[in-house]
Amino acid sequence: MKKAKLTEITTLYRFGIPFETDATVFKKNDLTFKKCEKIDYFSITEKENKIILTLKLFKDDKVYGLGETLGSLNKRGKVYKLYATDDPIHTPEKDALYGSHPFVIISNKFGFFIDYPGEMIFDISYTKLDKMIITINSNNFDIYIFDTKKDVEVIREYLKLTGKPYIPPKWAFGYQQCRWSYPDAETIKEVANNFRKRNIPCDAIYMDIDYMENYKVFTIDENKFPNFPEFVSEMKSMGFNLVPIVDPGVKIEKGYDVYEEGIKNEYFCKDENDKNFVATVWPGYTHFPDFLNPEVRKWWGEKYKLFTDLGITGFWNDMNEPSIFFVPKTLKEYLKKVDKLKEKEVGLEFFMIKDEAVSLSNRREYYKSFYHNTPQGKYSNDEIHNLYGYYMTKATVEGFEKIIPNKRYLLLSRSSYAGHHRIATIWMGDNMSWWEHMLVNIRMLQSLNLSGFFYTGADIGGFGSNTSPELVIRWMQLGVFSPLYRNHSALGTRHQEPWAFDEYTEEILRNTIKLRYALIPYLYSEFFNSVDSLIPFISPLFLYFNDEISKNIEDQFMVGNSIMATPVIQPNAKGRYVHLPEHKWLYWKVSNYKYRNVKVYEPGDYYIDADLNEIPMFIKENSLIVLNEEEINYINEKSIKELTVIGFVTDSGEFTYFDDDGETYNFKNGKYVKINISVKKIENGYNYEIEKDESEDFVSTIEIIKFEIYDEKGEKYTEVLEI
Amino acid sequence: MKKAKLTEITTLYRFGIPFETDATVFKKNDLTFKKCEKIDYFSITEKENKIILTLKLFKDDKVYGLGETLGSLNKRGKVYKLYATDDPIHTPEKDALYGSHPFVIISNKFGFFIDYPGEMIFDISYTKLDKMIITINSNNFDIYIFDTKKDVEVIREYLKLTGKPYIPPKWAFGYQQCRWSYPDAETIKEVANNFRKRNIPCDAIYMDIDYMENYKVFTIDENKFPNFPEFVSEMKSMGFNLVPIVDPGVKIEKGYDVYEEGIKNEYFCKDENDKNFVATVWPGYTHFPDFLNPEVRKWWGEKYKLFTDLGITGFWNDMNEPSIFFVPKTLKEYLKKVDKLKEKEVGLEFFMIKDEAVSLSNRREYYKSFYHNTPQGKYSNDEIHNLYGYYMTKATVEGFEKIIPNKRYLLLSRSSYAGHHRIATIWMGDNMSWWEHMLVNIRMLQSLNLSGFFYTGADIGGFGSNTSPELVIRWMQLGVFSPLYRNHSALGTRHQEPWAFDEYTEEILRNTIKLRYALIPYLYSEFFNSVDSLIPFISPLFLYFNDEISKNIEDQFMVGNSIMATPVIQPNAKGRYVHLPEHKWLYWKVSNYKYRNVKVYEPGDYYIDADLNEIPMFIKENSLIVLNEEEINYINEKSIKELTVIGFVTDSGEFTYFDDDGETYNFKNGKYVKINISVKKIENGYNYEIEKDESEDFVSTIEIIKFEIYDEKGEKYTEVLEI
Repeated sequence: MKKAKLTEITTLYRFGIPFETDATVFKKNDLTFKKCEKIDYFSITEKENKIILTLKLFKDDKVYGLGETLGSLNKRGKVYKLYATDDPIHTPEKDALYGSHPFVIISNKFGFFIDYPGEMIFDISYTKLDKMIITINSNNFDIYIFDTKKDVEVIREYLKLTGKPYIPPKWAFGYQQCRWSYPDAETIKEVANNFRKRNIPCDAIYMDIDYMENYKVFTIDENKFPNFPEFVSEMKSMGFNLVPIVDPGVKIEKGYDVYEEGIKNEYFCKDENDKNFVATVWPGYTHFPDFLNPEVRKWWGEKYKLFTDLGITGFWNDMNEPSIFFVPKTLKEYLKKVDKLKEKEVGLEFFMIKDEAVSLSNRREYYKSFYHNTPQGKYSNDEIHNLYGYYMTKATVEGFEKIIPNKRYLLLSRSSYAGHHRIATIWMGDNMSWWEHMLVNIRMLQSLNLSGFFYTGADIGGFGSNTSPELVIRWMQLGVFSPLYRNHSALGTRHQEPWAFDEYTEEILRNTIKLRYALIPYLYSEFFNSVDSLIPFISPLFLYFNDEISKNIEDQFMVGNSIMATPVIQPNAKGRYVHLPEHKWLYWKVSNYKYRNVKVYEPGDYYIDADLNEIPMFIKENSLIVLNEEEINYINEKSIKELTVIGFVTDSGEFTYFDDDGETYNFKNGKYVKINISVKKIENGYNYEIEKDESEDFVSTIEIIKFEIYDEKGEKYTEVLEI
Repeated sequence: MKKAKLTEITTLYRFGIPFETDATVFKKNDLTFKKCEKIDYFSITEKENKIILTLKLFKDDKVYGLGETLGSLNKRGKVYKLYATDDPIHTPEKDALYGSHPFVIISNKFGFFIDYPGEMIFDISYTKLDKMIITINSNNFDIYIFDTKKDVEVIREYLKLTGKPYIPPKWAFGYQQCRWSYPDAETIKEVANNFRKRNIPCDAIYMDIDYMENYKVFTIDENKFPNFPEFVSEMKSMGFNLVPIVDPGVKIEKGYDVYEEGIKNEYFCKDENDKNFVATVWPGYTHFPDFLNPEVRKWWGEKYKLFTDLGITGFWNDMNEPSIFFVPKTLKEYLKKVDKLKEKEVGLEFFMIKDEAVSLSNRREYYKSFYHNTPQGKYSNDEIHNLYGYYMTKATVEGFEKIIPNKRYLLLSRSSYAGHHRIATIWMGDNMSWWEHMLVNIRMLQSLNLSGFFYTGADIGGFGSNTSPELVIRWMQLGVFSPLYRNHSALGTRHQEPWAFDEYTEEILRNTIKLRYALIPYLYSEFFNSVDSLIPFISPLFLYFNDEISKNIEDQFMVGNSIMATPVIQPNAKGRYVHLPEHKWLYWKVSNYKYRNVKVYEPGDYYIDADLNEIPMFIKENSLIVLNEEEINYINEKSIKELTVIGFVTDSGEFTYFDDDGETYNFKNGKYVKINISVKKIENGYNYEIEKDESEDFVSTIEIIKFEIYDEKGEKYTEVLEI
């Protein structure tokens, strides 16, 4: 065991010889290590090649982090298993989901990140109320301790270590419609036409697994999509981005090019006998590409040309835990076992039949039985299990660097590891149309933001099981504040497009989505500001406010620096409780963004009204937001000429508006505009100031800025400035 | 279709010739019917022998009722299927549970009860936001309309129609410990000893299925319970009531007396071929007794003598939907189907293997394939499905009338129908150790109380999946206010007895259970008062308070007339939001009932503190509660000599203390004591009055009443009166 000091705050402790995961962005060769026996804060035990780290927790300690995990935002009270798992039913007792983000904040004390890609178990105040017990399935790993009492600093150190958050194209901030599946071009066109005809803005429509020919990755079913290039450009001309799904499993089928290439070049993972490992997923029997091998990534990444050549820049890499329905050999054994019961009088053996059938998927033994050929040597999947989704996504991104250089992409992956946030993002997997899953969404949105996934979101309306009009309304209202704003639902469930219910619901959803589009300038600006400052875009209250109640509130969150979202997440509710910390807040109950129905609240706790058609949001005292009040069908339809600034200013407020081309990385070379807007209270009114910072290569289209400022009594002051 | 007016408020509409269910308590022969075409409020459609009743719902209408169903207290937004179903995973999308209570309140408008024992589907604002659509699987049924705008009156009319709520023995208000299973006498003794040794009060220990010999009903495994009578009396002498489980399925086994008697006398349900119907449950192949047949009930009811002769008066009738793991014939067909896949390359057929295995239990077709021989003729189980649990329980109660006449019993059933609340009660079935299920518990507790089940409760700590110390603490705190206070957990899950965690948790749980025992005089008195007045013992706020927020609050509830329970139901919370309607409230944050840490709140909305060891409760302005401050190990250990009255009185408050022998129905013949306690504010203090009403045959043991009254400022006034 040895250690190296990386910064004033961060120390790396190294156990054994860790697998180099790609989670961090600095050069480890340059480190100077010193031997050591202990690490700060933790006690260490070793047991059967596992390391157990134990941390004493005090009664009032709060524990945050672990990214994509279930349970409360304060992670105490549950066991979390970091071992990528495709679980379609996120009931509260589940310990493992798709991703592994082993970054933890002990609030107001310190933080740490364990860089280990195999199984880790975090038992946080579950077995013992006053203990965190971390079991690491190896004695080769890195742990970074961030030794600062400031939570914001802990996050900043983690992000300096693992990289700045990924920035999607601007259109990805628009509304996105998904369904498993819109199976063919005709259906997608109909969905697209519905959006435009019904005057509901939308930027993207997803293509789920049924677009492929027999689920073969990198194929398009020609019966369903007779002229795919033409179809893509037709969608593009209507303002829609298509987002096809990509799965890792390659169907075993003679003559299928991806399969043949993989076989020929030995690109697939091997089993114990050095044969290509066979697993069953959507296409039936498949092989898994070995993304840990750079050569395989090069091959795979360029396959996306099939789509990018047509102008497609949005993708979701699915099933990359990797999910395994079953392994043929194991299924056969099961069938044999069941077969023996045929002649018997079956009683409670029935539970074996049922339970084993259910447990045939994603067995740990499967992951122990196939191997990766990495530049660091041969590893079983189990040993580096949590990297598969990341490396599939890395393959995609390395491909993009070649096939669409300097083009920003929307890239969602289901599985991920720490550092993934730097190159792409994730969605939250298969949730359900349950009211309870809105709270899961809210908690995970905050938790993932703490781990660097600033742009992410859950399936709005719920993926599995049938939704209801009220649930979709309330969830779509929450979605206004979710960076990824995607409505998605599963095969066989009730449709949940905005028009799937009744006119009343459709009208509410239209206004809801329009609020999102009006807020785009605010959201886009603040997103860039967040990435710059390394402060989560979606932030728990505890990062902003230090009072005791704020530390307990998990169902409100900051969106950028000025907005606090307080979504209604109970059925039949006509309002909700809100905590308004520290200073005054301006309540804007939005049914239509053009009407500003606002009210000033003193700090405190309130039950606020919010009818089904009303979205409750608060503007922080002495802060501004910006709106684009012009209606648009999709993000890039029109350039913005007029910007509306809404402010709640009792002293002074500032906002930095940001814009760029929305599609490239040219902003890194100064091709952007920043407008610093400031409003200062003076006697009988306000002083307004605007300062524009634009490059020659990117000029703002904004001509007019309209101010609408509310004072401490909620009285409105307006001003219009030309720019 | 015809109608008859029953009371000023209630009209019965009769469709066709309904099956006489036993739900109501009046003589239907005496009714004078008039022909009619319509029923008030509803529109009627007929479709394939089904009747569809449709009710227009307005935006602000609130819908309550439906007893044991999932979803919110206000039932809008979900589909409910009333078809008794054994479902062990109560995820939010589930539509059917164990019981059928087709009683509905349209708040401030009217109420109705549909007396039909087959399948009914209530689609309440799910398909259409503004519609309730009720599909009744028959055109033979009764519907009662309660035409009053007063919700309390609707409930009272329903309870006059279906009978006064059942009253359990007094010991059933004590704490009860359950586990699937404490498998033998030794284990139960150890549990019992733990309670006494650790100074934790407890009145009952449950015996789950493993006490039987091979799950054969009305047997006791002699290896596990070598001298059962002695064991029962040993438990009794320690103050423990044993509560054995009873299942309806009778094992097919030559020589087993229950089986042989059933066969000989044709007591079992028949299949289509008039053979005894075979279903598989815990004992393997079984037959189901036909409880719809009075002769079968007579036979079955007397079987409980096995236990009652030993002094056992507590039972739980389980599995009586009836639950069917599978029907042998159907399993065979499945195995054959699976067998055919043995030689194939299985791909997505895997989902058939899995999904069909899971769906082998409780198939609708099973219930259509067996029959009841009722005094009203032969009916398939499907047609009268929801009555099976009720009639099993009726068999039990009819037996008790003979074998333990004038003895009160604790009788829980899993399945039930409207009217069941008159003869026994239910528990809420198989919940999970999920925080979300505390809210389910709270909502269902209120909903079941609206339907007449005043004494009921959920499995505290959660039945399925592993619990955590914090969850058990918070749930046990909620349980203080649950009439049935039973901690129960499933095979293979983490133990959750009060000492199962650590000393800190045990100490909190000890104090929590002691608070329950201190409150027994209040709970017992108010329970009787509730049954007398036909006002729910556990009541939603909307029955007491008329403000808008009270109608939206589902996680606070009244316990009797003086206490409002406001349990903490979020992990890691150090408090919660509360709504305090109409008048002042006295907040008592209880960590130990001997210390009264109280504070006066003005009406309004607050975030109140309540640390892990603190139980938040409020005392209504101008009301009193009574405590027994003496520590007891079980309810009947000692008679109460001193009563403590705690009051929050700004003008005047009253309370009627009630007591009786706790074991018989003698209270109906005047053998009880009532003490009317009243406290009136006067200048500089209070006037205290006590009025005792006792019969010669039942004399109160109370000698001293201590008053502890708080005024509007929270200042304490004390007085001690002899009585």
